[in-house]
Order: sequence, then structure tokens, then C-alpha cells
Amino acid sequence: MASFHCLTFLTDYGLEDGFVAVCHGVSAQIAPNARIIDITHLVPPGDIRRGAAVLAQAAPYFPPAVHVAVVDPGVGTARRAVAVAAGGSVFVGPDNGLLSWAVEAAGGATAAISLTNRALWLDQVAATFHGRDIFMPVAAHLAAGTALSEAGEEADPASLVVLPRPASVVRPGLAEGEVVTVDRFGNAQLSVTGADAARAGITPGLLITLVWAGREVTVPFGVTFGDVATGELVAYADSAGLVSVAVNGGGAAQRLALHPGTRVTLRVTKLCIRAGVPFPSGA
Amino acid sequence: MASFHCLTFLTDYGLEDGFVAVCHGVSAQIAPNARIIDITHLVPPGDIRRGAAVLAQAAPYFPPAVHVAVVDPGVGTARRAVAVAAGGSVFVGPDNGLLSWAVEAAGGATAAISLTNRALWLDQVAATFHGRDIFMPVAAHLAAGTALSEAGEEADPASLVVLPRPASVVRPGLAEGEVVTVDRFGNAQLSVTGADAARAGITPGLLITLVWAGREVTVPFGVTFGDVATGELVAYADSAGLVSVAVNGGGAAQRLALHPGTRVTLRVTKLCIRAGVPFPSGA
Amino acid sequence: MASFHCLTFLTDYGLEDGFVAVCHGVSAQIAPNARIIDITHLVPPGDIRRGAAVLAQAAPYFPPAVHVAVVDPGVGTARRAVAVAAGGSVFVGPDNGLLSWAVEAAGGATAAISLTNRALWLDQVAATFHGRDIFMPVAAHLAAGTALSEAGEEADPASLVVLPRPASVVRPGLAEGEVVTVDRFGNAQLSVTGADAARAGITPGLLITLVWAGREVTVPFGVTFGDVATGELVAYADSAGLVSVAVNGGGAAQRLALHPGTRVTLRVTKLCIRAGVPFPSGA
Repeated sequence: MASFHCLTFLTDYGLEDGFVAVCHGVSAQIAPNARIIDITHLVPPGDIRRGAAVLAQAAPYFPPAVHVAVVDPGVGTARRAVAVAAGGSVFVGPDNGLLSWAVEAAGGATAAISLTNRALWLDQVAATFHGRDIFMPVAAHLAAGTALSEAGEEADPASLVVLPRPASVVRPGLAEGEVVTVDRFGNAQLSVTGADAARAGITPGLLITLVWAGREVTVPFGVTFGDVATGELVAYADSAGLVSVAVNGGGAAQRLALHPGTRVTLRVTKLCIRAGVPFPSGA
Repeated sequence: MASFHCLTFLTDYGLEDGFVAVCHGVSAQIAPNARIIDITHLVPPGDIRRGAAVLAQAAPYFPPAVHVAVVDPGVGTARRAVAVAAGGSVFVGPDNGLLSWAVEAAGGATAAISLTNRALWLDQVAATFHGRDIFMPVAAHLAAGTALSEAGEEADPASLVVLPRPASVVRPGLAEGEVVTVDRFGNAQLSVTGADAARAGITPGLLITLVWAGREVTVPFGVTFGDVATGELVAYADSAGLVSVAVNGGGAAQRLALHPGTRVTLRVTKLCIRAGVPFPSGA
Repeated sequence: MASFHCLTFLTDYGLEDGFVAVCHGVSAQIAPNARIIDITHLVPPGDIRRGAAVLAQAAPYFPPAVHVAVVDPGVGTARRAVAVAAGGSVFVGPDNGLLSWAVEAAGGATAAISLTNRALWLDQVAATFHGRDIFMPVAAHLAAGTALSEAGEEADPASLVVLPRPASVVRPGLAEGEVVTVDRFGNAQLSVTGADAARAGITPGLLITLVWAGREVTVPFGVTFGDVATGELVAYADSAGLVSVAVNGGGAAQRLALHPGTRVTLRVTKLCIRAGVPFPSGA
């Protein structure tokens, strides 16, 4: 297997301790020429779905890489440690579903290895820090050119844990899904793709009604924040291709009490009478 | 144009999502040998003045670089995307004033380009993520050696949006300005330079009176935090050459309710009787 | 002296300002081929003990490096700036104890230099930012191959400020120490080593009683979080070899009001009747 120039790293380790840094140090010892790019380390502790969503949306923008992801509430228990080949890259982490959406986005697993070759681990393995002692050293060895097959025993890709996708419903004039993530800006990203929304007839220039948790609000479906006045709500297909709800210059999730997992229905309300120009304030 | 080894990156994207990372990934694909140094990604969402201040104070300490800055509440609207040559570096970002103070600190714009050459963008451009799809790919191409002139149409440097500077007043015994930034330590940095303060007669060893929002307090003008006892206020010329107000071991901005934009007057009160030695506690 | 490929950086500068970045920029000018790995910049402002603990636990996982650490409430006062050779690495920072535990972990100081050679500093030195103007430029010169002895005057390693270690007591059936750090997950790390705990008879599979601040609680001593049910307390020897107290999927420090410095006694309570299997919920 060829070596990889690029190694990415996503965890829930936070930035206030030295956990991320020691993993960088371990990699620097094993693969001094690999460049580590941190995806994020602020996944809420143990939030596998959030980690999976961020990884799946980020990984496609990287060159072929070893992607190390560790959100691992079961560290030190029986869950497998795996490396999964997909789309020219290798994904390394716990087999708890964290890698599954990114692997799918990369075209699906072409091979999987259970990380059982202790020769690639650190000499001492703490039960609570497999990121430092197993995942990162194995990943660094892979980045430095060790063949994937040397990392352990072959595993059936079909045996890998896959996180269930949020159920989405699309029919003429209506799309239904759930909130996948809320980003720093308070934008609430839904599990409905922009393409599915378009199939349902939800396209820029329309007014749509959002229904969730017994509440509803009518918002313009636009293309960017500036389509509405500051402080106004707007729905749009976001940079990951998913329908999102935002407030121009504010936080939609906070205002509407949308949280990851909240079920949301989008319904076409009526044509916007001024399509193509900014929506009127208060629309 | 020569290639750049160094690319800096400042945004309001935060660190909890993958936004910063995908931009790193895009750069790694286009300019694998460019080193990206993050300036900060914690500019408060949409706070162009804060971003401009941090960029202007940081950029002078870098080798010639491509500086990418994205605080862009108008993303996807008519505002221009630009690259500006100044002082041997290139500044890339939205034409909303964000770059203006750094460009000025670098000696002023010697050329400006409106980023209209789509060949340097990603193939698909999302209306809400020009950092990923336009700014970073263009910057990476520039870092890899593409000539600035190839990035788009020439623009008149005089047409670039410039953020107004806070008005400052300096006369004998008095200097007036406003709070520019509050840093992590709660130090409040004013728009009055140490040099201007010195011209007004405000120099280390004096007691000065701060007047703001109808309040006033007398503080020593020193050179560092340790010039006063723990918990005491001190004013001084900070590491960016601007007068700041601090509490030794505490937060001055919080204690005095100083916020970016607060107007502050500094007035010489009297000579400190013990100049050259630490100020007395409670001075 | 050989050059170093790797330079680490730990401060209390935070991530919202440009302080960390300008230090990276300074290094990029002096030692363009040195790779900087950030350990953390979120040490609470001025918290020397916290900085010392994080540095001492992270540094052993790096290749030989120049470790720059700046938590420096006395910046600009009489405290020395030093570089200390230990275990093949060099530690650079203020002589206030911050480096002492890491130096000890690296085998102790073999040489120390007081950083008095201004030729290695930036031309202008601000009294409040020695990280940018002294520590990082000196460290970058060392990384680029400048001999340690050129950085200033030799200092007696015995004269370096050493932080006192928390007092620990170990006797059969009992170990006593204090909380050293609380990490992102709310795990409270004690000053008692796992080896000392084992000497006291505190080993996985036992129930132990924690006593602190007039309170007590009985918890299983396990090896990882998943040894107890979600929401339950567990004590264990952590990845740094120290006894820690955690809640599986939660925060122990918050629940038990454990803070750095809190004195804690561990006492063997009884053998767990179901050793080797997960502890019962509510144990």
C-alpha cells in the first residue's frame, strides 16, 4: 500500500487537555512526514452521531488520507477497533458506527481490518486512551506505508456497525426529516437533501412552512443568508447539500428550539410573489 | 509570481464543526506543500471589526504569506471576493473591510484583483461557503505559484472597502479613543497608540484617570501587569503598541464594563511619587 | 547541537486572539522547517500548576523536541527566562516552576541557560508578550540548530524553580492525595499513582471508599468507564498512570465537587463479589 501524506483527526477529546497533542506526538514519532489536519476535537463527549456527521461532511474534501476518528464511549470494552478502506482512503477508529457515514460517502468499504496486530500499537496500552495507544499509532504506521492487511485480521465489511440514517419522507409538496446537526452559527441542518427537496417542489423563491414539535412557522426558501433581512429566518440547501434553517445574523436552532433529532416537516406554502429578489422582511 | 510557503487562515467558523478542516483539505489538494497557520477561528460570528483587528495585529509577524480571512455575513450576495497584494503578501477574502487594516499595516495595497476566474474555484460553489469553494482554493493556487493577475479582473485598490478607524484625539495631558478589542485575559485595548499617549505626556510612572460612560477611575500607567499588586488596575502600552487597561491576574474589561466601541478618555492625573518602583497597591 | 524537527507549544493565551498565531509566525520566519505542535492554549490564565501537569503528561509522547511553554503571570518582572535540557529535549519558558514537572519526567535537567542573549530575541521586546518576543524566537533558533549554550548564561539546574508536588500518603488499605487536574470529560485525576494504589492493595475488582471534604462515597475500582453502567461512578488508573475518578458518560468532578487541590482519601472497602464482570449498577 502506498503511504499517505495526509492524516486527519477527529475526536471528542476537547482542546483544554493534552490528549490531542500526545496523539500528534505519537504520530510524529512513527510517521514524521505525515501531515495531521485536525477536523474537530469538540464533538460533544460520546456523541457518536455528531462525530459521524462531521466526519462524513469533511472527509470528501481531503486528498487520499488516513482518517482517524475517536468518539469512543466504549473504550476498553469489547467493541472492535477497525481500519476500513474506502474510496482511496483509510478510516481508523472504534467500530461503533462513527466511521460508517463517511465510509458510505466515500463509496462504501472495500476492505476492513480488525486492529489486532499489537506490533503496531504502543508498548503499553491504557484501557481508557486507545486514541493514543492504538488508533493513532496504527494510523501513523499506515500513513508511513505499512500495508492495511498488516494491521490485523481481515473483517467482513458487512459486519461493521452502521449508524441508522434518520428516516426521511419526500412526496409532492412535502419533505420530512430530522435535525442532523446544529453548527456554530445556530444553523439547523436537516436530513433532507436539497435534491430531495427539489423533487418535492421545494425550490428557491418559494415560501415553505416548517412544522416541528407542534409548532409551525412560514419561511422563505432561499439560497443564502442575505436573501432575507437581518434577524429573519430562511431555509436553503446548505454547503453539504442538505436543507438547513438559519437566521440571517442570528441563531435559528436557538430561536426555534431545534435540536439534533427533532423531527421537522417542510411543506410548500405558496409561490413567493417576488421570486428572484430578496424576500420581504417579515415574510 | 513566486509561490508562498505559508498560508494563514482567519475566520468566524468556530472549531466545533468541520468548516475549518475542509478548507485545510481543499488547500492540501491544491497546494500540498503550503503550510497553513490558523490565526483564529473564534471571531464572533459576523464581527468584521474584530476580525480586522486580529488580522492586522498578527499578519506583520509572518513571513510573506497568503493571508485568507473570511468573516463574511454577506456571503453569496453581491459583495466582491478579492485578493489584495500588500507588503510582499497577498490578502484574500470578502471585500467588506475585513482585510483593510491588515493591508494598511502592510504598507497599503499595491494591486487588487476581483476573484472572477472560476477556473481557480472548486467545481461546485455553495452560496453559503465561499471559504471552502472560492477563497481557499484561490489562495492555495496563489500559494502554489499561480500569478495574482490570473485570479480575476484587476480592481482599483482605491475601490476596496475600508473600515473606518476609531476616532482618536490627542492633546497635551489627554488622549481619547475607543476600545478596539478585549482579549482572553480581559485586557481592554484602546485605539490610542503608546506613541500618541507619550506625545500627550502619558508615560510609565504616572497616574492617569480613565473616564468612560460617566464613570472614572485613577490607575497607574506602567509597563506590565506585575507593576501593580494582584487584583489592581494598570494601564500600559501593550504588545501591539496600543494603550491597554488590565487587572494584574484578573479581567479589566469585565470589572470596568468596557466593550469594543466604548469611548475612553485618558487624562494625566499627577506624577507618581515612586516612579520606577512598583506602584503601591490601591494606587 | 543538532536541530529539532519538532517544536511544541503550550500557553494560557486562548484561541480567540492572535497571540498563538503570531508565535507560529515568528517561528516560521526563524525556523521554517520546524513543525509546531500545539499542546494546549487553554490553560486557565496564570494557572502554572495546571500548565505544568499538562506539559509533564504530554511531553513524554513526543520525539526529541523544543518544548515551549508560557504561563507567565510575572511576564516583564524579574523572573528569569530559561531553557532547560532534559532527556534529549529542551524546555523553554519562564522560570516559575511551569517546566519543572516535565523536566523531572524527562529524567531531570542536564543543563540550564538563562536566556540573556538578546541576539536571539526579536528586535523589539514588549514587556507583556515574551512568548512572541523572547521564548518563541529563542526556541525557533534552537530548533534551527543554534547551540543551547548560545542562548545566554549558564544557570545552575539546582537553582531552577520547582513546583511542590502534592503530598501523597500510601499505607496498607489506604492512599491519600489531591486532585491534580479535571479533564474535559469531568474525570478527576488524583496525585496517587496506580502503582502506589496497588501497593496499598487498591486494585481492579475492589470496592473503595473515597473521602473528601467531609463527604464519602463507595465506588468500584475498575479499569475503564464501561466497567460500570452509564451514569455510575468508577475509579481506575488512568492513561497517565494516576488514579482518576469518573462517571461513565458523565462528569465526576462536577457531581462530587472535586476541584484541583481537593484532598482525597481512598480506602479499600471490600472485595467485589463479582470481580471480573461489570460492577452492579448502584455499587
